Amino acid sequence: MKDRDEYYMREALKEARKALSAGEMPVGAVVVCGERIVARAHNQTELLNDATAHAEMIALTAAMSYLNAKYLPDCTLYVTLEPCSMCSGAVYWSKLGRLVYGASDMQRGYEHLHCPLHPKTRVRSGVLAEEAAKLIKDFFKDKR
Amino acid sequence: MKDRDEYYMREALKEARKALSAGEMPVGAVVVCGERIVARAHNQTELLNDATAHAEMIALTAAMSYLNAKYLPDCTLYVTLEPCSMCSGAVYWSKLGRLVYGASDMQRGYEHLHCPLHPKTRVRSGVLAEEAAKLIKDFFKDKR
Repeated sequence: MKDRDEYYMREALKEARKALSAGEMPVGAVVVCGERIVARAHNQTELLNDATAHAEMIALTAAMSYLNAKYLPDCTLYVTLEPCSMCSGAVYWSKLGRLVYGASDMQRGYEHLHCPLHPKTRVRSGVLAEEAAKLIKDFFKDKR
Repeated sequence: MKDRDEYYMREALKEARKALSAGEMPVGAVVVCGERIVARAHNQTELLNDATAHAEMIALTAAMSYLNAKYLPDCTLYVTLEPCSMCSGAVYWSKLGRLVYGASDMQRGYEHLHCPLHPKTRVRSGVLAEEAAKLIKDFFKDKR
């Protein structure tokens, strides 16, 4: 399971790199259902001029649309950064089966803010966290 | 100011009634900028088959699109029910100027869950709360 998580997290990291190239905050996500990637997204707040266009929001909505399902109990969301309160709320409403994230977000992360997930959502954190965190550091370094 | 808040909340209640008629959880929202309604929305989780399609999410994204602005510091969001953690997170990212809501949500409301808003967002609660709460009670009564 560990290697499989790293495999999908590398796909999420590819998405994060697309965001970085586009001048977006480099966060990427994929949704996996039955070993298949059913949605992939990266942060598009600049492109869409929408402060809510986080990778997780776009990926979850795309997965629901693709699967024609309002809930995602059999899916895993891989995201390079710990979700914020908004995205953890979306995870809650989607009844997601499993959340796997990379780097922790001590400022806006849902765990730090004590925002609850759905009790049935299993969580694994820290997967390829250094790579995810480095992308974000590089982004803010370029901003200065 | 009080009467003006009630005026706009009545517009949000109209949206909530549209949701009820459509078999959706009856929550409605409008975004006001300079006394003008720039976005209106109601819950569309059933129609869009998307558990994240809450009134506030749709209204905030529509307002950003209409105003061509990523942030909404000069806007007020009127919503008939206390926002959940997801929607309060969207309010946070939008840097909303003011939030006015109707009924409290003791289960999923952001205040109950202690999810933070942006420090600059002013809040007023309880505006036409009974009307908003009655719509939700009617919805769940019909579901049983």
